[in-house]
Formats: sequence, structure tokens, C-alpha cells
Amino acid sequence: MIYPESLEKLINYYKKLPGIGEKNAERLALATLNFKEEDLDKFSDAIRNVKKIHKCSICGHLTEGDICNICADPSRDKNLICVIEDYKSVFSFEKAGNFRGVYHVLNGLISPADNIGPDNINLSSLVKRVEAAKKPELILALKSTVEGETTTLYIKKIFEKKNVLISRLSYGIPMGAEIDYLDIITLDKALEDRKKISD
Amino acid sequence: MIYPESLEKLINYYKKLPGIGEKNAERLALATLNFKEEDLDKFSDAIRNVKKIHKCSICGHLTEGDICNICADPSRDKNLICVIEDYKSVFSFEKAGNFRGVYHVLNGLISPADNIGPDNINLSSLVKRVEAAKKPELILALKSTVEGETTTLYIKKIFEKKNVLISRLSYGIPMGAEIDYLDIITLDKALEDRKKISD
Repeated sequence: MIYPESLEKLINYYKKLPGIGEKNAERLALATLNFKEEDLDKFSDAIRNVKKIHKCSICGHLTEGDICNICADPSRDKNLICVIEDYKSVFSFEKAGNFRGVYHVLNGLISPADNIGPDNINLSSLVKRVEAAKKPELILALKSTVEGETTTLYIKKIFEKKNVLISRLSYGIPMGAEIDYLDIITLDKALEDRKKISD
Repeated sequence: MIYPESLEKLINYYKKLPGIGEKNAERLALATLNFKEEDLDKFSDAIRNVKKIHKCSICGHLTEGDICNICADPSRDKNLICVIEDYKSVFSFEKAGNFRGVYHVLNGLISPADNIGPDNINLSSLVKRVEAAKKPELILALKSTVEGETTTLYIKKIFEKKNVLISRLSYGIPMGAEIDYLDIITLDKALEDRKKISD
């Protein structure tokens, strides 16, 4: 054995993380050796404590309690529901920081090719949430792939005749991008979704 | 707070690791969420257990016991001591797998510019080891920087009149490298250290 046993074990766990190869895992483990004892305890506890995290019973986002911080926040507009593929989108929106509604995490997208139908994603609870809301508004924030579009259309269809205001995120040019380098589909969508700026 | 508390803590610890930024720490923490409970416990233990690792009382390499696996191995030649800057070199040599001697970890190099003198690195115990050996041979495997060369010369001087066979690693062309792209200093050294191949 090249490494002391406990170092070898740590290297093997770092290797289980995405994008961390043999060499990098060794580097991380050796850096961990230089942590203060107190930090090692806290780091160790932090790893064990992620077991506390589960899904919010309302929106499906990550939480340690029964419902997540966002659903529990009285200042958030419970009528405005942003529908997303997974909890990573919540972090992105919250970092952007301007959305004052709540989320609904689908935990997947409809994908017939992968045998994922409407019943395999977190849709039935969305229907219940919308029905329970007074003046529901849905923002569909799903990616622009076949699966994303399929799911968007499916959700649109469910609520079509139920007096629910539905929108999707705009497609267009990412901020700061050079138009010359943009792919033609994005350019086409940006043209289609163009916004009037004259009075 | 954007993340659940325990996730936030884990992200902060991943960020303490070298080369792991904000975004990457989030990615690693979310991947950790998907570990099995059993793996989380073991990973957590692995981090706590690196506290067991300390320096070998003979060579200065990492070990969990009093002396390291290499010093404890009766098949290793205790007269052949490879002098290295830090324990990372031990891992490299052991992976290469052909060295059958033992190591001596200096834990630094002489560097007057950084106020690191011969007394600040693990040299006195090397002198004792060499004096205790029957037919000592030293291989100096230090990098080819000013600090490395200074340390090599200093060690050479200590043992000059003490009947110790001393060698250093050869400089030269790395295996597979294109000669056209090699820096001139390496090329110069390769010329100087050229090896006779005729009979």
C-alpha cells in the first residue's frame, strides 16, 4: 500500500465525487491533512449531516425541516409558482435574487425515450397546489431541449382550461454574448421572442 | 440563506480544498447528497481519521504507527537512503515502484530568501541515520531550482569526507518529449549528463 490506510480511504471517497480523478483526489486528501483538528471534526460532521436533508413536502426542494425555507417564508407570493426541473435551479434563481414567488421541483422531465412519463415526475402535487391557490400563476422554467419542451407543453395542456396564467422563460441572447458567435437556433428564437421597445 | 444549513456548511468545507471554487464546491456537495447513508458515514470517518496520521520517527514520511510502512519493511535496503523534499515524492517513487531503499523527508529546502536555513529542515536526523548505517548511500532527489541545488550542495558538503556514496537524480529529456520544444536549460543539462552507450 502506497498511502497510510486512513489517507487511502479518504482518497477513495474523494474519487467518488464528480470530476475528481486519482491525482486530484490525492491532492485534496493531502490538503485535508493540513486542516486543523477542529476543522476536520466539523468537515466530518458536515458530511454526516447531509443525511438530514430531504425533500420539502410542498415544493420538492431540499430542506432539513418539513417544509423548505422558501415555502415557509410568509413574504413569498404563494400564487406565483416557478416550475423547475431540479433543485439546482432553485439555487440559481435564489442567487439571481429577484424572484419573490415559490418553486415547484419536478425532479425530472417527461422523456418517452427514457420511459419517463408524466406520472414519473412530481406533477400531481403541482395540480393540487394550483387548485388550492386563489389566483395561481405558473412560470415554466424548463430547459429548451425536447424533454423540456415536451414537459412545458404537457403542463400547459393540464391547466389550459383552468384559468391559470402560464408563462415560460424567454429565449434569447445571453447577456454579453457576441451575436456573430451565437448558434442559429438561439438567434432565431431571439428574433421570435423580440420585445417591443418603442412607445 | 440559499442552501439548507447542513449543505451550506459542507459547501464551505469543500471550498477550503485547493482548486475548489464556489461553483465546484456546490457541485461536490450536491453529489455528496446522493451518497448512500453508509458511504456518508464512512466518508465522514475517513476525514476524521486523518488525524491519526503523523510523521514517521525515522524518515519523516506519513504514517499512522510509530514508524512508516517503508521503514518497517525488512526487505527494504536501509543503507540506501533517498533524500526528498516532502512526502509527496515518496508517493511518486512508490508508484514508479522500482526503488528498494528507504526515504528521508526533509520537509523543505534550504532557502535563504525565505529564511529557511539547514536547521529549519529535517537534516540533523539524516546525519544520525547515515552515521548509524553500515555502508550508507544517499540519492538526492531534490528539484532543480536554486533551493533544490543549494540543499543538494549543502548535503554533499556535510558528508564529503565521511565516506558516503552520494548521487543525485539525472537531469535530462523527459520520456516522450519533443526535443524541439524542450527548454534550453534542460537540453544543456541533458547534454552534460549524457550517457555512454557504446561498448
